[in-house]
Amino acid sequence: MSEWKMSPIGFIRSPYTETSQIPKGLGAQHQAEGVLEIRPEFEEGLQDIEGFSHLFILWVFDRSKVVELSGIPPLDDRPHGVFSTRSPFRPNPIGLTVVQLVRRDGLQLHLQGVDMLDGTPVLDIKPYLSSIPLEKLKRGWFDAAEARAAGKK
Amino acid sequence: MSEWKMSPIGFIRSPYTETSQIPKGLGAQHQAEGVLEIRPEFEEGLQDIEGFSHLFILWVFDRSKVVELSGIPPLDDRPHGVFSTRSPFRPNPIGLTVVQLVRRDGLQLHLQGVDMLDGTPVLDIKPYLSSIPLEKLKRGWFDAAEARAAGKK
Repeated sequence: MSEWKMSPIGFIRSPYTETSQIPKGLGAQHQAEGVLEIRPEFEEGLQDIEGFSHLFILWVFDRSKVVELSGIPPLDDRPHGVFSTRSPFRPNPIGLTVVQLVRRDGLQLHLQGVDMLDGTPVLDIKPYLSSIPLEKLKRGWFDAAEARAAGKK
Repeated sequence: MSEWKMSPIGFIRSPYTETSQIPKGLGAQHQAEGVLEIRPEFEEGLQDIEGFSHLFILWVFDRSKVVELSGIPPLDDRPHGVFSTRSPFRPNPIGLTVVQLVRRDGLQLHLQGVDMLDGTPVLDIKPYLSSIPLEKLKRGWFDAAEARAAGKK
């Protein structure tokens, strides 16, 4: 079976030291500020990144040691498959967060909207280029759970 | 240095067998249909995925053998850092594509909007839950190159 080895291009500095501190579930607001510190050998890869307002950050759930193919997520009362959720217990423990780039200071990217733990290893950064219009989006069990939470059902 | 080993949860069937066939650059339309075939041992992880209209697919640039920290992308005439582009020559060769989920047929997810080569290994699937409004988006050198291409500059 093929395998690929991934190693960090940098690390996150965030206000969160425990997962319990991270806002979760429906309507969670991720306004926390943090810093992505890039390893010096990757500095050239940052050229022109300061022109982007939003970035995708790909990172590792490095403190997650198990895989659970289904589970009950925060703010729902029924199980869903891991690929339908943002659970950390994934076959490949990769996290994905859309952040706002506040500013670049050399090797430091100052970000708004971090939901990673302090010290989280980062694998990649990609420019956020386009959006699916909200009216075209169906959000499966999230929509259903939200409707239930709002007492509409 | 920490390392994480990633292995495929499935593979892409797409109409593209060579990178030259894949639409690239500004305004590229990714309407191609493809199938993500999930390995049987991960079937439980797909529960409830059919309720989502759009998904993030995380995959491996498995035919990309080099890293280039900066390069000249399609449809621009000047170099940019790899983290400001969608180049395949990344320190960790992970690709990210937003696709539309047309339908699920057991272990097969029928997708619209694939831009991967046939046989591409997939590492993860995540639900697409929210969008940054277009009016809040700054797209750095993409916007600049687009303006130049349109002869506005």
